[in-house]
Amino acid sequence: MRDIPVVSVVGESGAGKTTFLEKLVRELKVRNIRVGVIKHHVHDIDIDRPGKDTWRLSRAGADAVAISTPGGVGLFLNLDREMDLDELAGMFRDMDIVLTEGYKRGDKPKIEVNRSDHSDRLVSDPAELIAIVSDVRWEVGVPVFGLEDPGGVADFLESRYRIGRK
Amino acid sequence: MRDIPVVSVVGESGAGKTTFLEKLVRELKVRNIRVGVIKHHVHDIDIDRPGKDTWRLSRAGADAVAISTPGGVGLFLNLDREMDLDELAGMFRDMDIVLTEGYKRGDKPKIEVNRSDHSDRLVSDPAELIAIVSDVRWEVGVPVFGLEDPGGVADFLESRYRIGRK
Repeated sequence: MRDIPVVSVVGESGAGKTTFLEKLVRELKVRNIRVGVIKHHVHDIDIDRPGKDTWRLSRAGADAVAISTPGGVGLFLNLDREMDLDELAGMFRDMDIVLTEGYKRGDKPKIEVNRSDHSDRLVSDPAELIAIVSDVRWEVGVPVFGLEDPGGVADFLESRYRIGRK
Repeated sequence: MRDIPVVSVVGESGAGKTTFLEKLVRELKVRNIRVGVIKHHVHDIDIDRPGKDTWRLSRAGADAVAISTPGGVGLFLNLDREMDLDELAGMFRDMDIVLTEGYKRGDKPKIEVNRSDHSDRLVSDPAELIAIVSDVRWEVGVPVFGLEDPGGVADFLESRYRIGRK
């Protein structure tokens, strides 16, 4: 099985990473590409609501709880540490590409989202960037796409990682 | 990698499956056994709260969304079908045993939880049972443990599946 390409969408807080990712995911889905997303939360998440069954089983100490539903499955792993990106990516199967929101200190190829009214500098080392999404025509040796051009970025990813399914 | 043993805890609705599972999970954890739990939900679960980032990315059509936190990870797979037990069990790694709540029509070895004030019959075919948890001394050829004896069931599972880590 080949490694699934992992690309990190980075940028300053408030630059519009989630908004852009939403558009990019929609665009990739139109092309029939299977997309996984990894997001980092600073706080622990609660499985289910306090008192409900899965919450009770998780609190009882289950190392993993899966909830299976007609439309999918939720899997919660209790760990005493944070998983790194490679471990997280390894949990995704049958995906064509995995996008991460953030992880700017990770070692994956990066797309930086930048808005001129928000910041006049990039947070990434240009050597780690494969593309920029911005309203500024940055000239750092990688393609720049407009903030409203998720289609351009999707074309770029399709071609770079040969993930089209047409 | 050997297959992880999967045992289904079944019984009539209201018989106390979740309560017993909670006790059993605690008991297995005391023994340092790694436990996964699978539960079935009739309704789809919502990832995160409406409007929040991971919810937005899931709604945008992401086939999988992982949320990584300091204490673990949540992984949500959007599917257009329900996973079967073997697929679900395949998602668990590094577990010593996986317990399912329900799945009485599944083909895994079963432990039935029964309470005399609730039902005077078993829902399972005795041929599929490996044990019964009840306040009645059922005589159907498998060991019977009391409702307050999760330790006895843990001993039984440890011995049957050789999963102790002492």
